[in-house]
Amino acid sequence: MSDFSFSYHYPSSKSRARLGQLQTPHGLVETPAFIFCATKAAIKAVTPDQMRACGTQFILSNTYHLMLQPGAEVVAKMGGLHRFMGWNGPMLTDSGGFQIFSLGHGSVAAEIKGKRMGTRPKTLLKITEEGAQFKSYLDGSMHVLTPEKSIEIQRLLGPDLVVVLDECTPFHVDKAYTQRSLDMSHRWGVRSLQEFQRHDDGRQSLYGIIQGGVYEDLRREACDFVNSQPFFGHAIGGSLGANKQQMYDVVAMTAQRLDPNRPIHLLGIGGVRDIFEGVAQGIDTFDCVHPTRLARHGGALVRPPHALKEGADHINLRNSSCREDPNPIEPDCPCPTCQTYSRAYLHHLLKAQELLGMTLITMHNVAFMNRLLTAIRASIAEGRLNKERKNWVAEDDFSELSQNLAA
Amino acid sequence: MSDFSFSYHYPSSKSRARLGQLQTPHGLVETPAFIFCATKAAIKAVTPDQMRACGTQFILSNTYHLMLQPGAEVVAKMGGLHRFMGWNGPMLTDSGGFQIFSLGHGSVAAEIKGKRMGTRPKTLLKITEEGAQFKSYLDGSMHVLTPEKSIEIQRLLGPDLVVVLDECTPFHVDKAYTQRSLDMSHRWGVRSLQEFQRHDDGRQSLYGIIQGGVYEDLRREACDFVNSQPFFGHAIGGSLGANKQQMYDVVAMTAQRLDPNRPIHLLGIGGVRDIFEGVAQGIDTFDCVHPTRLARHGGALVRPPHALKEGADHINLRNSSCREDPNPIEPDCPCPTCQTYSRAYLHHLLKAQELLGMTLITMHNVAFMNRLLTAIRASIAEGRLNKERKNWVAEDDFSELSQNLAA
Repeated sequence: MSDFSFSYHYPSSKSRARLGQLQTPHGLVETPAFIFCATKAAIKAVTPDQMRACGTQFILSNTYHLMLQPGAEVVAKMGGLHRFMGWNGPMLTDSGGFQIFSLGHGSVAAEIKGKRMGTRPKTLLKITEEGAQFKSYLDGSMHVLTPEKSIEIQRLLGPDLVVVLDECTPFHVDKAYTQRSLDMSHRWGVRSLQEFQRHDDGRQSLYGIIQGGVYEDLRREACDFVNSQPFFGHAIGGSLGANKQQMYDVVAMTAQRLDPNRPIHLLGIGGVRDIFEGVAQGIDTFDCVHPTRLARHGGALVRPPHALKEGADHINLRNSSCREDPNPIEPDCPCPTCQTYSRAYLHHLLKAQELLGMTLITMHNVAFMNRLLTAIRASIAEGRLNKERKNWVAEDDFSELSQNLAA
Repeated sequence: MSDFSFSYHYPSSKSRARLGQLQTPHGLVETPAFIFCATKAAIKAVTPDQMRACGTQFILSNTYHLMLQPGAEVVAKMGGLHRFMGWNGPMLTDSGGFQIFSLGHGSVAAEIKGKRMGTRPKTLLKITEEGAQFKSYLDGSMHVLTPEKSIEIQRLLGPDLVVVLDECTPFHVDKAYTQRSLDMSHRWGVRSLQEFQRHDDGRQSLYGIIQGGVYEDLRREACDFVNSQPFFGHAIGGSLGANKQQMYDVVAMTAQRLDPNRPIHLLGIGGVRDIFEGVAQGIDTFDCVHPTRLARHGGALVRPPHALKEGADHINLRNSSCREDPNPIEPDCPCPTCQTYSRAYLHHLLKAQELLGMTLITMHNVAFMNRLLTAIRASIAEGRLNKERKNWVAEDDFSELSQNLAA
């Protein structure tokens, strides 16, 4: 009586790229698909109607933010996240772990780039077998998130897909730490699953998470663990390495070992090139704040012919060269923004600090990502993923990575 | 060959309230109507599509802001305001005078309330017979706005309806100043008209402005002046007094003396009660930033039964009593926001500083104003304006003013 299913096929025997259908109680997702981040139960600056008008299938919200404000109980009283935020399509929540650990000791990206957390206070206080103790970023109040608590909160929030609590290990730790952390995450995974099964009424399905850092044997161990547990889907998390090639290698070794009968999500990855790489390795879904965050800073995603600088994947609409540019962001883009507005107008809105600028550019970037995934699905069906990639990724990005791609 | 016309009728012989049709090259406006402020060529936080979905007929933009950023020439190169901002309905621009003078020596409202301008620098430098010299609020650069320049800028911007430059006299000045200012504004009015006629190609029509402060003889003189000139419409501006009753008296004495064959606009007034009073005096159109500005501060316009406090005309959605309120802003409101979202969700968005909160509340307030004007038009047609008013204005607001209203 479950409303969940996942079916897939590999159109080309020469590629691990696949097409899938992920069925949820709130609708079907054609995969590969991109999941947009509605962190605090809202896609920043656009309405659910606008998201749908831009071709969106799937969104996610964050347990960490929602448990602190407005609180899971309030969302539950209001009928759950779908009703609360007016999104009646497929929806996922994460476990809250990533934010606790990344806000707690800095993000992997910040570490890699050598950035300090600056004046932001450390909010992660203690990690024990029981769970993670942290301070609210809003008011400093103390909270403990355990695997059981995370699942309970996600049950109250009520999305279709939920995720186990894990420790998201930082980039700088050594293999011994990563091994110990992995072992604990697996115990947390079992506890998450048990808590999930205790209340399972068929309205939600659970994803396990694969950690293990950049270590092939640990990733293998993690894959074997999740494959052995009755998860509905799998999400690849944790540190994926110090550079793109290492990330692609980790994704490749992990994805190949995962049970192909379950949907595979790649957490927090949303660059265009990264998506082509991931799809080629059999990844079914991606999420990332990048497309919507970039938009709020005036960055509009474009295909290579429309970039202002060679090799760039977006236009900075604050750039003075846009001041009198009558063209839309992309002349051949069918999104509501490109159908109506010039770069000059968007430039003006940014200069004038009009919120509408963020809305219109976000709509373009959302439509761009959905158009990208639609093109990817079509190209997989027709066995020409590598060729399609040339329409979306600048030439000079190719050489280094082509071995990861099969046509 | 003009695409402009104004027709009207008085459904009740006992009332000055009237119904009209204001035809422009970009469509018909059913009057009485409310004009929403798209100050910098954008309604703050909502798209033109959303404005239309909320029943909007008519918007205005501000010459003052647009001449400084992005500049009238840029807008003209981009095909004019309609095309630039994606609004294909009726549109008006003001002359720029109000902002020069109100930013220059403080708004009438601030004066009445005894507010100082605080740290905001005075930007108005000099008023001469030639025009007004002022500093840009953006970069301190020097500008001169003359009647001819204002009309030229508005021609470049390209809205349907444009307005003569006048001196918007402050509240505190004496009658002698007001008289001298009025005389100069009339000379500016003639210069504006001459400049307008020099380039008139039938795509725009010009409104004259009535100044004269609270002085009945000066208002009469101002009405006689505009009636004598070939303006398409008339806008009532300037200081309307220190309190609501004085404002209603000034509006009444002015509106009664204006040529009834021309549409009459009341500048900068948008309170619900004020609109009922104005309509009863024969005002055809109103504009005000209030509904959209209130929304961005979390205020949602409501009819009396839905207020949280007796006599209030809006709900402050930041109020903690909204935290777990599953009801929409108004249970019987057909706007997109009330059809989908609870007060609890809007409260959450405001607390979480999500821009979407501003968007959704603005949509409600826009729909509210359009619904108000639709109800007013229906009630005028059926001779029951005074009765309709009871649906929109709290009881305790009535007694003092009922003499201004005829059924």
